[in-house]
This record gives sequence, structure tokens and C-alpha cells, in this order.
Amino acid sequence: MPRYRDLTHTARPSDAPRVFEPKNPIRTTDPGALQMLKMVEEQKIETVFDRAVAQHPQCAFGYKGICCRICMAGPCRVKTEEGPGSRGLCGASAYTIVSRNIVRLIAGGAASHSEHARHVLHTAHAMLEGHAPDYKIESPAKLQKLAQDLGIATLDRADADILRDVVEVGYADFGRYQDRPLAFLDSFLTEGRRKKFLATNIMPTAIDKSVTELIAQTAMGVDSDPVNIIFGGLKCSLADLGGEYIGTKLSDVMFGIPQPIVSEANLGVINEKMVNIAAHGHNPVLSEMIVAAARAMKDDAIAAGAEGVNVVGICCTGNELLMREGVYMATSSASQELAILTGALDAMVVDIQCIYPAVQTLAECYHTKVITTEAIMKIPNAQHIAFNTATALEDAKKVIGIAIKAFKNRDPKKVNIPSEKHSIVAGFSVEALMEIFSKVNPDRPISVLTDAILSGQLKGVVLMAGCNNLRRPQDEGHVAVLKELVKNDVFVVSTGCSSGAYAKFGLMSPLAVEEYAGEGLKSFFKMLEAANPQLATGLPLVFHCGSCVDNSRGMDLAIAMANELGVDTPKVPFAASAPEAMHEKAVAIGSWCVTMGLPCHVGSMPPVEGSDLVYGVTTQIAHDVFGGNFILEMDPVIGARKILDALEYRSWKLNVHRKAAEKFETSLAQGW
Amino acid sequence: MPRYRDLTHTARPSDAPRVFEPKNPIRTTDPGALQMLKMVEEQKIETVFDRAVAQHPQCAFGYKGICCRICMAGPCRVKTEEGPGSRGLCGASAYTIVSRNIVRLIAGGAASHSEHARHVLHTAHAMLEGHAPDYKIESPAKLQKLAQDLGIATLDRADADILRDVVEVGYADFGRYQDRPLAFLDSFLTEGRRKKFLATNIMPTAIDKSVTELIAQTAMGVDSDPVNIIFGGLKCSLADLGGEYIGTKLSDVMFGIPQPIVSEANLGVINEKMVNIAAHGHNPVLSEMIVAAARAMKDDAIAAGAEGVNVVGICCTGNELLMREGVYMATSSASQELAILTGALDAMVVDIQCIYPAVQTLAECYHTKVITTEAIMKIPNAQHIAFNTATALEDAKKVIGIAIKAFKNRDPKKVNIPSEKHSIVAGFSVEALMEIFSKVNPDRPISVLTDAILSGQLKGVVLMAGCNNLRRPQDEGHVAVLKELVKNDVFVVSTGCSSGAYAKFGLMSPLAVEEYAGEGLKSFFKMLEAANPQLATGLPLVFHCGSCVDNSRGMDLAIAMANELGVDTPKVPFAASAPEAMHEKAVAIGSWCVTMGLPCHVGSMPPVEGSDLVYGVTTQIAHDVFGGNFILEMDPVIGARKILDALEYRSWKLNVHRKAAEKFETSLAQGW
Repeated sequence: MPRYRDLTHTARPSDAPRVFEPKNPIRTTDPGALQMLKMVEEQKIETVFDRAVAQHPQCAFGYKGICCRICMAGPCRVKTEEGPGSRGLCGASAYTIVSRNIVRLIAGGAASHSEHARHVLHTAHAMLEGHAPDYKIESPAKLQKLAQDLGIATLDRADADILRDVVEVGYADFGRYQDRPLAFLDSFLTEGRRKKFLATNIMPTAIDKSVTELIAQTAMGVDSDPVNIIFGGLKCSLADLGGEYIGTKLSDVMFGIPQPIVSEANLGVINEKMVNIAAHGHNPVLSEMIVAAARAMKDDAIAAGAEGVNVVGICCTGNELLMREGVYMATSSASQELAILTGALDAMVVDIQCIYPAVQTLAECYHTKVITTEAIMKIPNAQHIAFNTATALEDAKKVIGIAIKAFKNRDPKKVNIPSEKHSIVAGFSVEALMEIFSKVNPDRPISVLTDAILSGQLKGVVLMAGCNNLRRPQDEGHVAVLKELVKNDVFVVSTGCSSGAYAKFGLMSPLAVEEYAGEGLKSFFKMLEAANPQLATGLPLVFHCGSCVDNSRGMDLAIAMANELGVDTPKVPFAASAPEAMHEKAVAIGSWCVTMGLPCHVGSMPPVEGSDLVYGVTTQIAHDVFGGNFILEMDPVIGARKILDALEYRSWKLNVHRKAAEKFETSLAQGW
Repeated sequence: MPRYRDLTHTARPSDAPRVFEPKNPIRTTDPGALQMLKMVEEQKIETVFDRAVAQHPQCAFGYKGICCRICMAGPCRVKTEEGPGSRGLCGASAYTIVSRNIVRLIAGGAASHSEHARHVLHTAHAMLEGHAPDYKIESPAKLQKLAQDLGIATLDRADADILRDVVEVGYADFGRYQDRPLAFLDSFLTEGRRKKFLATNIMPTAIDKSVTELIAQTAMGVDSDPVNIIFGGLKCSLADLGGEYIGTKLSDVMFGIPQPIVSEANLGVINEKMVNIAAHGHNPVLSEMIVAAARAMKDDAIAAGAEGVNVVGICCTGNELLMREGVYMATSSASQELAILTGALDAMVVDIQCIYPAVQTLAECYHTKVITTEAIMKIPNAQHIAFNTATALEDAKKVIGIAIKAFKNRDPKKVNIPSEKHSIVAGFSVEALMEIFSKVNPDRPISVLTDAILSGQLKGVVLMAGCNNLRRPQDEGHVAVLKELVKNDVFVVSTGCSSGAYAKFGLMSPLAVEEYAGEGLKSFFKMLEAANPQLATGLPLVFHCGSCVDNSRGMDLAIAMANELGVDTPKVPFAASAPEAMHEKAVAIGSWCVTMGLPCHVGSMPPVEGSDLVYGVTTQIAHDVFGGNFILEMDPVIGARKILDALEYRSWKLNVHRKAAEKFETSLAQGW
């Protein structure tokens, strides 16, 4: 299939700059951020955008992945093409060093997602033991479905009993020593993926073990075979997916399945007249309590002279709150500091991940209080309130109390809130999408999507995910890829800071459909809207399906499509894209996307260029084995076109098979 | 106590070179290695010694720990003292970057030791299930003691039943989710340490969780508090100690408790007339079977024209075999390539850790076969024989068969075996030492050691551990520190590549005592020898107590001394030294030494110089909290003197207390 390989596999552009050097000191395209930066221009306040410029040019060894600091005899660098300088002290070649470095990023991602999941699991467990009185089973329906998927009996059983078994399976998935697959992964796979993972020996058995084993595999003097190392990394990435499943599904059980909801986004949601508190980080276990406490303490805020408490979201916990509570999204991770620069943010409460240590440095120039809550996440000089699930609401009220007190110290002269904000529609869990599709086809809702693809109305589905990476201007990649996709009739779901970008730009709204969607996508939306008169608004250009652990929702959607189409995931016209991938979590997510058989575009170069072999494995060989591959393409429009080609090829092939099958059946019917 | 602080805490020498640059291209002091390199000089064969020179000067950012590659927006480097270039994009300061980097090394070490321990555990489990017929319980006595320490019933129970419970505890220690201490750590601690670890919240609950949690804690946007990060690292280092306990104690159960044994060391043990096979790596699970298979296949070797099969050890699995089987030690890790250069090594069979990928490159210039055996450790082009505990002896015989076949292809013209070899005495488990002491004091054997310290005959005990680091000439540090210590009457035990150094230099023999030991140490040895006429040889200058997981034996000895003296470990005149630390495992070991209250000298600079705060925490603040601290001193003689000062202070203080107590008792007796 030469056409396919030519178009969807990225040739390594020999003339591409190896190390990106920013020339433009304005490192964001977010309209709210630009407004903010202009407003504080004369104050010479250092933000991430300045540090991004100061860090360039970056070290080319690290950028390419050929610097090894895995033992203390190093750093060793691949300095020459040949001779003793071409390998580490131990003799590790570039391919060993590059592959070890990259899979350790996967381990970091899996560890991160799994800590998040472990926290949700502990909370559910504490709740069952009667030690977390402020939590409850919000969605018994989700619990029933989850238990059934995991093979847990549900008939005539109390919810708490069912959840107890679910939690037990979750704990076993962290610490199992037996050679049995991770239940929270295995239970949701297609049969084809299950067989593939067993055949390639990458089915994980336990999350913590997968991380530990991979770290051990990549220690000095252990594995030097890049292919074996990468397979170890893929196994760990599947453990990451298992962790994400635990995180997403248990969060839905405890906090509810997201449903379509209207809200607003960008820095303009910070309200001068209210006590503003930003919930920043990742885990709904904390932020849901912050919202509850804020609602309970409205009168205290009024007593302090405010009109109420305005909780705004930043980063993924913002996404969680937006999805379930309609909480305003102030900004995404890369521009988190700017919320403080408004001078009207009274407190920022954080849990884990993607929280810049710089927020405290900036907060010290304002009245803003930064509050850390987790034992493994502290910031020097920030206030720490240990968040305990046993006293969750009480702890959350302490946080709101601090915000209200800080509000009184707000300096009106320093208040500078950008006007930028947009109406958005969010809350598109897979269940919510199915509900919408079911109004067209109640028996097989997902066929509404797959039929539209087979008919050519839609080109396919793309999951837009993850991060900003300030090697390039913030959000530029997310927006450019999206516009190219929707123009070409792709149905787009998004998570994390990709969702953040679209929300902030006003692209997560029905208004954007008219301007940016292709004719096929528009007609698809019209058909859905006509069948769903109950919806309060039209459908958005891009469907927000949650935080970064909620990339698991995207995978659920792809698997549902595979099952409907009667094929395995590598044949589904479904791709992923992380145009500005940055965090280790993004590397883990991208890796499981590929392993699950999806083309995965990445628009910020991972450190693999130091080895042609590793580069080739990730972009090409991976496809031969798993049916998915990385598309490493820095130009977002070209990246989007490569995604479109991959989708088109898959749709074309599905139709070829389908037509051949129809012809064959016709032949049989005609007695040939 | 100003005198104490001045002497035992390393001031940071402002004039010390920050980045070591080797001037001498001869990067080893090992007499066997020097002979070998001279013999192959004209062949221009690249070895680690050439690569070590080629890698210098090293990158100063990596060397000091101020390069961050934890997310893909980096590499970020601390380039300036102030301004945007002084922090990472996210705002991470030098102290955050340095502490994250260093604790991720601890995670790597804990993961490595625990994979080793997990393998031993799996083997014991398989044996109990009847799936590992070639293994057995070699030491029921050790099993009894271990079970009792773990609180497992032993009375009237079959060994297999006891072991089953022990294995279950071991598995739980890997995957426990409950908030209970790691049993394989907690069961061996002093009461003081237990309280300290609970009070400082660093008692680990499960090994895999500790690794995963630490990786998550150090991900981008999580912890930026260097002290909190370091405490997370110390928790993980204690998990590492737990893993080492599992490794050592279960290995003793299954392969026997080491007893004093005579052997030989250095490259001269490779025997031209025999089939030579090197067992290299760490785990006795493989290498014990290699020895058994070699013994069983002697006739096959004779049929092939050899006099037999000569298994020689390299690195820590060599130490394991030397300790239990008296197998010759060919060389230590850093000089592993040289065994191949002899031209007489027919096969090198490896498991995990410290195995240079370069061995395969070199082996291709000879007839030598490199055989990998573990799923997580492969080398491109090397032969892989999956080692399965179910077919262990059979698999090991395949390996011996390959060596015998290779022997026939040996090119006599390429054979160059150095003459260097030395008689050594090894096998000093704590049990073996106690057996020797018990001949002097049957009731309280350990008091023989502590009394000698209190009386001033000995200055204390030092555990010499770990690695070569080719930033400095191989073994130079190990030998220099040892000579200074024994001259000053220190009782020295050693592990890993430190043992390797002493064995290769002939220092692990009774002959060396006369030349190097101080008068106190000599008289102590004479007293022990007089009481132990059953010993086949005199006592060695330094007591080999095993591989790198067997640093746990050193800790057992320190704890036994603490209990005898009625104090906690920070008061025991016991120190550790890793003059050439290199592997992540060394960082983990050093960290738990400090946490366990021991002064720990390190002679190769860890990447902490980029932050004065982290440097200060490791060298000083750690002492205030845990009673142990790092002594970072590159000059081995000065390093040894700092160790001596720390020991002297502890002995002095013990005696002050003891005399005060005696005086008080005398006063009471006299009725004052």
C-alpha cells in the first residue's frame, strides 16, 4: 500500500531545524493571554513566556535524546558518529540512550496518571469504610455498567457492595503479583487488541509493577536493545491507560457522568465583584469539594463585601469541574500565571501536576494565596492545607475562608481583568454523545457516527489531546490542527489543554460551527440537532470530553466504533493528535494510542531524533506491529493533512471491504 | 558540638574542580586490568577506559544536576544566577531541579534492587507451587529465623508452609495498598528508627508504590519543595532497603548462608585449558544454576578437549557465587570487557544490571558468545536464551553447551591471559561473623566487636560499598580509603565492586593484614583467630559480605551493634563509604544509609552541586533529622579521615555516656 505509507508516515525532513529557536518573544496566541500581557507590559513581570525565550537555544543533546544521565559516571553524550565519543561509557549506543530516555518519560506519565487514579480509588475505599462522609455514589448507573464490564455481579446487590468489589479490583490492578492482565484495561479492549498484547507480551499485570519494572529495565547495564526497551515502554503505556480508566470511570461513579452543559471560558470569567478562587491541578476529589464549599459559603463572601464566591478552573481539574458542574474555565496550564496577574484572584488551590512553581513567586507580588493540598506536592512559601478525605468539606471550607480573607486585601489598583471570554458547551462523555446519537438510532447509537463516516459525510474522528509546549506559541498548534480537521468534516473530541485552547478561543461553541465546519460536518450536526430538540443549545464545533485522564473516553469511543464496524481499532477511522505535547503524561498517552492502533500526530518533537532507529520504530515499525504510529510533524497544517490522509485511507479500506462483502453476498443470493 | 560538625560534615571546598577532567588516559589501577591493557595495546581495541576519556569534559549542567528533562518543553538549564534564565520554563528553581533529578536516581535504584528481589521471590513461589524443580530450601535455619523476625509462626510447621507465608509477606511488600509498613523493612529496624520513620512520614508501605509515587511526585508541575522531594526520596530509599532485605534473606534461604571460603580473584583465574564461562550480573537465581550445570557437564567439556568447565564471576553475581560456592572472581564491573580480551572466555552469560552493552561489540572480535537470559535485558546481536525457573537447569545446560561449542572455535593466537590473581577469603555473612565472635563470647557474640570499639582496640566498623565510577581511575578510591581505614584500626566489611577491588588487589586475604592493618586491628584479629582454630586460614584484611543487595547485611550488623550497645543506629560507630559510586542503586543505598543514621562517604560527586540548598540538606540537615549524613569528598584519603572522625566522635560519646552511667551507679552503690 505505497500510497498509504507515503502519506501517513512522516518522512524525517532533513531540512527541518533540529533545535527550535523562538524568534518571536510573544509566546502565546491565546487572545485572553495576549490581552493580559499587554495590560501588564510596563510592570516587567516575569512569566513562563519570558523563561521560554530565555531557555533557548536548548541543548541539542537533550533535545535529541542523546544525553544519558542514568548513572553517575555521566552525563554521557553521543558526540561523534564513530569512535569512543559515539557511545556512553558503558557502550550504550544512541539508540539505547534515546529509547531509555523516551520510555522513562512513559513511566513518568503512567506514574502520574496512576497516582491520580489511586487517589480516587482511596477516596472510594474510604467512603465505603465510612471515613469520607462528604462523598457519595453519584451515578449508580455508571457503577452498574462498570461492574458488569469488570465481570462483577450486580443483581440484587447494594451499590456499596458492588463498589467494594470494584475498588478491590482497582487495588489489585495496582499491586497484583500474579500473571493476569490488568482488569481495568483488559475489560475494555477489543478481542483483537487483547490477542495482540498477549502475543507481543506487553499486557501489563499491575500498574505499579509496570512502572517499577520499566525503570529497572532502563537502569545502567540492563536492557540495551531499543526494540525491547520500546516494547517495555508500550507495556507501561497500557498500564497508564488502565490507570486512566480507573480515574475516569470511578470519578464518574462518584461525581457523576458529564452531560452537556453551558459555561464560559478565558480570563474574563474572573469576576471583580466576587471572591475568585482558582481550582488548579487534576483531581476532582479536591475540586468538587471546593465547589461545594464555595456554594455553602456564599454568605461569608457577601459578608466580606463580595457578591459571592466565583470558583474558576485552570488546567485539568478545571476541565473536570467544567464537565460536571459547568464551572468557568479561567485558562489552561501554560497561561496559569496570568490568572494571578489579573490582581483579582484571591486564592489558587492546587492538587497535583502541571502546577508551575512560579505561581507562588508571582502570587507574592499580589494578595493572592496559593494553597497546596497534597503530601507529594508542596511549593516553598505557599500555604499547605493537608486535604483529608475524612474532613474533605471542612478542609475545602478552610480554603474558601482563606480566599475570602485575601479578598479583603485585594488592591483595586492592581486589578486588571481581560475582557476576553466565550460561551462554550462542554460535558460530552461518551454516554452523553450516545444519548444524542440514540435520538437518531436508538438501537445502535454509535452507528450514527460510523455510518456517517462510511457514507463519506464525515471523514473520521480525531481525539485532540494534551498540553501546551512553549517551544511554540501557546495554542497555535491546537487551533490550526482543529481548523484544518473540521474544515475537512472530521468529528473532533478533545481533552485537557487542547480543550482549554478551544474553550478560550470560542471554538467550543455552536457559533464556531458555521464559520469553520465543512459541509459534511455541518449537515451531520444539523441532523443530530434536529433529532435532539431537548438540547438547550446547538452542538459545538469540538466536543469536550474531559481532562487528560479522560483520554480514556476517547479510547472508549474508538473501541465502540471498532465493535460497531466489526473490525479491530487499527481499522477504525480514528486518530489522535497532541499538537503541543509537553508532559510525560502526553508521552504515555501517545504511546498507548499507537499501541491501541491509532495514528497519533505529535506537533512538538519528542527526544527521538538522536536515533534514526528509534525514530523509525515510532513512526513506522510501530505501525507494522500495532497498526498505529506516531506522526511527528511540527507544521500543524501539514500535521492535520497527514491525519486526514490516515483517516481517509481507513475509511476507503473499510468501504472496499464492505463493498466486496456486499458483492459477495449478492453473488451468493444470485446463486453464483 | 562544634568539633563534631567541623570534622564530620564536609565543607564545600570552593576551590575544588566542579567538573572532573581526566588527564591520565590510563583509567584503571587494577593490576590485572593494567596487564591486560598492556597486552592488547597494539590492537587498538576500544574499551570503557577510552570512552571515559572521550566523554570528558562532561556537560557541567548535567554534572551539577541543573539540567531538567522531565517534560518535553525542555531541556531547561539553570543558566544564570537571576532572571528568566535562572529557572526552568515552569519556574522550577535550581533546588527543585536538583532534588527531582537526584531522587529519580533513588527511584531507579529501588526499582533495580526490587526487580532482583522480585525474581528471587517469584522463584521461591514457583518452587512452592512445584514449578521450579531445580531449586530447594537450602537453609531451613535461615528460613526459621526469617519467619520469626517477620512474626510468622514456625512451631511444628513444615518448611514449605513457613516459606509460603514468607513469600506472601514478600509479595504484599511489593503491592500492599493498606497504610501498613513494609514488613521486610519494619521487622529489622531498631525501635528508634521505626519511631523516626513514622514521625517523619517516610515509612514505606509497598515497594512498587514507593517507586511510582516518587516518580509521580517529581513529574512536571508536582512537587517543587526540595525538602519534601528529598523526604520522598528517602522514603523510596527505605523501600530499596526493604527490597534488598527480601533479596538477601530469601537468597540465603534458597542458596544457603555464606560461610568463610577460600578462592581466587583477578583475570588470571581464567584458565586457558578449560572452557571458561563468565557469570555476570546480579542474581543467584541464574548463576547458581550455571554453576550446577557446569559441574554436571564436566565430561562434555573434556570430550571437547578441555580439562573441564571453569565458571568465573564478574560483578555482583560473581560475588554471590564467590560467597556461596567459592567461584573465582574474574573481575569487577568496570573492567568486564577485559575478560573478553583474554581471548579465552568462551561465553559470558548475563542477567541484569551493570552489564555493558559493549561486551557484545567486543565479543564479535573474538569467539566469545554473549548470552542474555532475562526478558527485560537484551543486547542487540547477543544470543538470548530465556531463562525459565521451570526449566532452570536445562536452560543453564544450554548455556554451558554454547560455551563448550565456542571453546572449539577459540583462536589460540588471540589468547592473552594476565598472570595476575590473588588468593582471597570471602563468605562473611553476618551469621558467619557471629559464629567467629561466638568463640570468644558465646552468649553475646556481637559484644566482641562492640567491646573492642569501646575499649579503643578498634575505631569502629565501615561498610565499603558499590561501583566503580570512571570519572576517576578504577579502584583507586576503594583501595586508598581501605588502606587509610585499616591502618587506623577500623573493622571493614565490603560488598559489590568494592569487594571486587579488594579481591583483585589481594587485599581480601590474611596476607594483607600484616602489611596494612593497624596494631589494634591486628591484635583483634589475633584474638579471634586464637579462639577459632577451626578456620582454614587467617582472617582477611576486609570481610566480603556479598553483592550490592547484600549491603543489607551491613545494615544488619550495624543494627546488631546498636541493640547490643542499647542505642539507636545514629550512635553506633558504624559508617559507610562508596568511594566510586556510579549506579542509581548506589544513590538508593547511600540514601538509606543516611536515613538509617550512618555517616556515608561518597567519593564521586553526585549531581547536587547545582543547589547549595540540596547540597546542604544531604551533607548537614540530614544529620539533624536522621543522625546520618553524606560526606561528599573526592579525595579518598581525606574522605577516609572524615569517616574516622565520625567514628571517633561516636565512640567517644558512647564512652562518655557509659562512664557517666558507671559513675552514677557507683555513686548509688556508695549510697551518695
